Amino acid sequence: MKIVTFSHYKEINDEVLKDSYAIVIDLLRATSTMICAISNGAKRIIPVEKIEEARLFKKLDESVLLGGERGGLKIEGFDLDNSPLSYKQEVVFGKTIVFTTTNGTRALKMAAGAKRTFLGSFINAQKTAEYIIKEALHYNIDTISIVCAGTEEKFTLEDILCAGYFVDLFKENLPDVFLDDLSLASHVLYKKFENDPHEILKYSYHYSHLKRLGFEADLEFCLKKDFVDCVCEYENLIVEKV
Amino acid sequence: MKIVTFSHYKEINDEVLKDSYAIVIDLLRATSTMICAISNGAKRIIPVEKIEEARLFKKLDESVLLGGERGGLKIEGFDLDNSPLSYKQEVVFGKTIVFTTTNGTRALKMAAGAKRTFLGSFINAQKTAEYIIKEALHYNIDTISIVCAGTEEKFTLEDILCAGYFVDLFKENLPDVFLDDLSLASHVLYKKFENDPHEILKYSYHYSHLKRLGFEADLEFCLKKDFVDCVCEYENLIVEKV
Repeated sequence: MKIVTFSHYKEINDEVLKDSYAIVIDLLRATSTMICAISNGAKRIIPVEKIEEARLFKKLDESVLLGGERGGLKIEGFDLDNSPLSYKQEVVFGKTIVFTTTNGTRALKMAAGAKRTFLGSFINAQKTAEYIIKEALHYNIDTISIVCAGTEEKFTLEDILCAGYFVDLFKENLPDVFLDDLSLASHVLYKKFENDPHEILKYSYHYSHLKRLGFEADLEFCLKKDFVDCVCEYENLIVEKV
Repeated sequence: MKIVTFSHYKEINDEVLKDSYAIVIDLLRATSTMICAISNGAKRIIPVEKIEEARLFKKLDESVLLGGERGGLKIEGFDLDNSPLSYKQEVVFGKTIVFTTTNGTRALKMAAGAKRTFLGSFINAQKTAEYIIKEALHYNIDTISIVCAGTEEKFTLEDILCAGYFVDLFKENLPDVFLDDLSLASHVLYKKFENDPHEILKYSYHYSHLKRLGFEADLEFCLKKDFVDCVCEYENLIVEKV
C-alpha cells in the first residue's frame, strides 16, 4: 500500500487521488466537529462553502441546523459554532446539519474525486484506519491519500501530526507500506510528540490562535485519541456514518 | 525575525517573499553543486530553465561550460553533469557556467522577487546564515524566506532537513525568532536526525533515486556540514560569490 500525504487541498494531485481512498483532516476543528456531531446522532451533515448557501438550506427546510465558523467564531444567525462541544446529543440527534468552515469544507470538496472520501481526526482515527484497511484490501485499492486541510493554504502542524497517526496505524496493520516524503515526515513528527502533541503545537499558528480565542477545551477534545467509534464518509456532497 | 519556509517553489507567497531575504535550497543537488563550483573558483553561474537556452549561450561564447541534468543524468553535449564532485577547481576556475536543472533553477527564478536571494546547502549553511543575519539586522529586514526547491512540486525531505538546519542557526543567533508551522516542523525533523540524516533519508524518494543511480558520493558530499566558506547570491539572473 502506498500512503501519500498532501499538506493542504491545493496540493492535491488529482491523478493520485482518483484511484485512492482519501482521508480528509481538518483537526482544528472541522473534521473533528463533524465526526463528533455524527457520533452524537446527527443524521447527516451537508458541508457548503458559502454562508449564503447554508442560509438557503434553512429557508427550504427550517428543521436543519446551521453550523460553522468564520475566523474561528460563530456566524451571525447560525445555530451552532465550530466547537465539537456544541454538537451534543440533545442538540443534534436526528438532525440534518448544514456546515460551513473555510479550510475543512474546501478540502472535502477537493478530495471528493477519490474513490471514497473519509473524515479523519485523532478522535476516531483507529476505527477509521481499520475500516479503510479492510475495504482497501478487499477492493484492491493500492493508494491512501491523506489530505490535510491546512490553514490559509499552508502546511499546518496539527493536521500533519494527525496524518502521522494515520500513517502509524497503516504501518502497524499492513504488511508493505510505501510512504512518500511528507507521510514519512509526518510519521516522525507524530511519533516524537505522540504522548503530548500540545508540547509542540503550543508554538504553532492555528492552535495558538484558537487558544487565544479561549477554545482550550476544544484543543483538548480534538487531540484526544480514539474515544469515538464511528467512521464518517463524504459521498454525494453529504457526510454520513458508514 | 520571522522565518517562513515553503516546501516547494509553487508554494511561495509573493507578498511574504518580496520584503524578505530568501534562501533557496535544492540540496540534492543543484544548490550544493552551484555553491561548490563558486567555491572552487567559477566566476559566475547562469541558471537557465531550458536546455536550448544553455546551448544558445555556448554558441555565443564557446568558453562557457554547460552543466546540469535531466532525470539526474548529464545532458547530451554538455560539459558537466549535476554532481558537485565534477566541479573541481581545475575544471571550473575562472569560468562562466551555464547551468540547468529542473527544480533548482525554477526555484531560484521564483525566489528572485525577494529583496536578496541566496543559495543554501548543508555545505555552507553556517557562513550563509551568519551573513544573512548581519545584513538583515543592518537593513531592518524582518522576514527570512526559506524556499525549498522540492521534487516535482512536492515536499522533499532532504530540502526540509536543510531548512531545519538554517532554522536552527537562526534560532541560536537571533534574539527573537518567530517560526511558521513548516519552519517549526523542519527544525524538529533536523534536530532528530542532526547526527545522521542518512538514517531517515534512505527512506525518502529523491535520495533513494540518486542512490539507485550510483551517486552515493554526492549524497555524502551534500549532507556534510559547513566545509565550504563562500556565500552565494542570485542577482540579475546570475549566481556569484558575495
